[in-house]
Amino acid sequence: MSSATLRVELGSRGYPIHIGAGLIDRAELFAPIVSGRTAAIVTNDVVAPLYAERLERALASAGSRTLRIVLRDGEAFKTWESLNAIYDALLASQADRRTVLVALGGGVVGDLAGFAAATYQRGIAHLQVPTTLLAQVDSSVGGKTAINHPLGKNMIGAFHQPGAVIADTATLATLPPREFAAGLAEVVKYGAIHDRDFLAWIEANAERLQARDPEALAHAILRSCEIKAAIVAEDEREAGVRALLNFGHTFGHAIESAAGYGTWLHGEAVAAGMALAARFSARHGRLPEDDAKRLIALLERLRLPVKAPRFPREVWLEFMGRDKKAEGGRITLILLDQLGRARIAKDTPQRALDEFLADA
Amino acid sequence: MSSATLRVELGSRGYPIHIGAGLIDRAELFAPIVSGRTAAIVTNDVVAPLYAERLERALASAGSRTLRIVLRDGEAFKTWESLNAIYDALLASQADRRTVLVALGGGVVGDLAGFAAATYQRGIAHLQVPTTLLAQVDSSVGGKTAINHPLGKNMIGAFHQPGAVIADTATLATLPPREFAAGLAEVVKYGAIHDRDFLAWIEANAERLQARDPEALAHAILRSCEIKAAIVAEDEREAGVRALLNFGHTFGHAIESAAGYGTWLHGEAVAAGMALAARFSARHGRLPEDDAKRLIALLERLRLPVKAPRFPREVWLEFMGRDKKAEGGRITLILLDQLGRARIAKDTPQRALDEFLADA
Repeated sequence: MSSATLRVELGSRGYPIHIGAGLIDRAELFAPIVSGRTAAIVTNDVVAPLYAERLERALASAGSRTLRIVLRDGEAFKTWESLNAIYDALLASQADRRTVLVALGGGVVGDLAGFAAATYQRGIAHLQVPTTLLAQVDSSVGGKTAINHPLGKNMIGAFHQPGAVIADTATLATLPPREFAAGLAEVVKYGAIHDRDFLAWIEANAERLQARDPEALAHAILRSCEIKAAIVAEDEREAGVRALLNFGHTFGHAIESAAGYGTWLHGEAVAAGMALAARFSARHGRLPEDDAKRLIALLERLRLPVKAPRFPREVWLEFMGRDKKAEGGRITLILLDQLGRARIAKDTPQRALDEFLADA
Repeated sequence: MSSATLRVELGSRGYPIHIGAGLIDRAELFAPIVSGRTAAIVTNDVVAPLYAERLERALASAGSRTLRIVLRDGEAFKTWESLNAIYDALLASQADRRTVLVALGGGVVGDLAGFAAATYQRGIAHLQVPTTLLAQVDSSVGGKTAINHPLGKNMIGAFHQPGAVIADTATLATLPPREFAAGLAEVVKYGAIHDRDFLAWIEANAERLQARDPEALAHAILRSCEIKAAIVAEDEREAGVRALLNFGHTFGHAIESAAGYGTWLHGEAVAAGMALAARFSARHGRLPEDDAKRLIALLERLRLPVKAPRFPREVWLEFMGRDKKAEGGRITLILLDQLGRARIAKDTPQRALDEFLADA
């Protein structure tokens, strides 16, 4: 079975990303982190029946005592209550500071387990074992962890890098179609903001990707992780360039929040958000109209939404104002100058945004 | 008005500690952090009526918009619920990433505000304005933040250094006698673990300290902060030497937890914990019996408890096993080799501990 390894270069906080089919069984990938320690698997009730036993066997082979913490599946459960369930389970088993949390699942599980690791006894190690496309190309890499607050997505969290990311591409076979498409939205994002050639490759391979062709998928995941790892290495805590990764996310988070968590998948909201951001970039920025149309057409081919629900202006502004990139009430947008090149726009005139949202 | 400034040397995370009477009114100390930003004061219902207005005036003079978040007073409120109250208030006022939290109060307020700052939008700045002796000599310095969990004290938290510590020694005038004495326990701790001369100075000045003589207090606070700052600079995340600061805390935390938060003040439990640790150091370690007696006599002169409640052995072991310094079920103790010199003991035989606790 072929696999690839790349590295997030963050000095003493650097770590490997392993990508390949069947990696969940490879004890030697886990051993450097979990050997001689307790490994507490954090997963959900959909993923656990599929992969938890195999992972437990690999962790046991790697020389660790295992513990399983099963949460309910879904963005609606990325809450205090789930986080507390993790703490309760750790404390009930007297888990000490040497315990390693192992996030087995999608972005919700990864964010929850990562934040629990960031805060349990002021910080313990964790591993990310992402089983969704979105988690493999995006949320498992880079150390952003969070939970949602009723007033805003990912409002409570921490930067806490994992000890390794182990992405078993074979797990994507069990992913529901809607979740798979949502993951492709983030793949498209990397092309849109950073790599026009990659975007062209996605266009040329859209059908193979949708058919989950293993070779095409492996390339898409590897290239996405390469781009993300490079940007994170340059700006771990989002003081600058890392904000480009939020392309589509300011509109997207507002859609997710205003519609109620769980109605839209994160990737779906990002797709619609990217379509909005591309249209805005064409109308008020430098993006050629044809480029905006090209991006939107690709998202549509990948069966992703490109239109937002019709929220009143006040709803848009309320939820966009709560975006973490907002500063002093001014909304920061990530705009495209061309396909493959994005920029941070802090100077968006409120009137332009108002008019745009009025007929979004 | 005289004041002193020292610095916690932590590179880009380094910060000043200002110590002196009346500092709460000195806008120029706050300005470098809060100018042009929103400053959200986190305080409690006992401290707010005493000092919040003055602090607000200073912060406004320093060029910030202020916001006041008032929690209920006491260790019993160092909980999720209080933390959520801070998040709710911040989100309700659309506080952005440039917001600065200002902790005005004792250790509970400092830990809560610090942890809220560590986790709101993945980390914002904060200032510590400690108004209790314990907070001025210990908890406001060093970046440890936490909340309690029903199964253990400070189990959930983060390392998050403040932007500055501003310790107004005049605020100690309003401190209830029991809380004042509890703060002296931590002052004694610095002498016991690190500075025999300072311990002798405390003995010589015990009456002046209890009378809250401003000059004696200023010296005690400055020397305590110097010792803590040096240890934190050497070992920010408690990989080694910083653990010495936990002298008396393994027994102390067990006392606090087993008795129920709020029954014992933290400093009281630490005093009894230090007395136990000193006796254990004499019986099973290298500390001369007379040195143990001398330390215990000083704690008694300062009107601090030197005996623990009579818990069953199982209760001791359960709560000590949950201590964050426990590893693989083995309990780590900080023992004294002599007054002024402590060491980390990971090799304490369980039988010795059992026998000791049986007649503690």
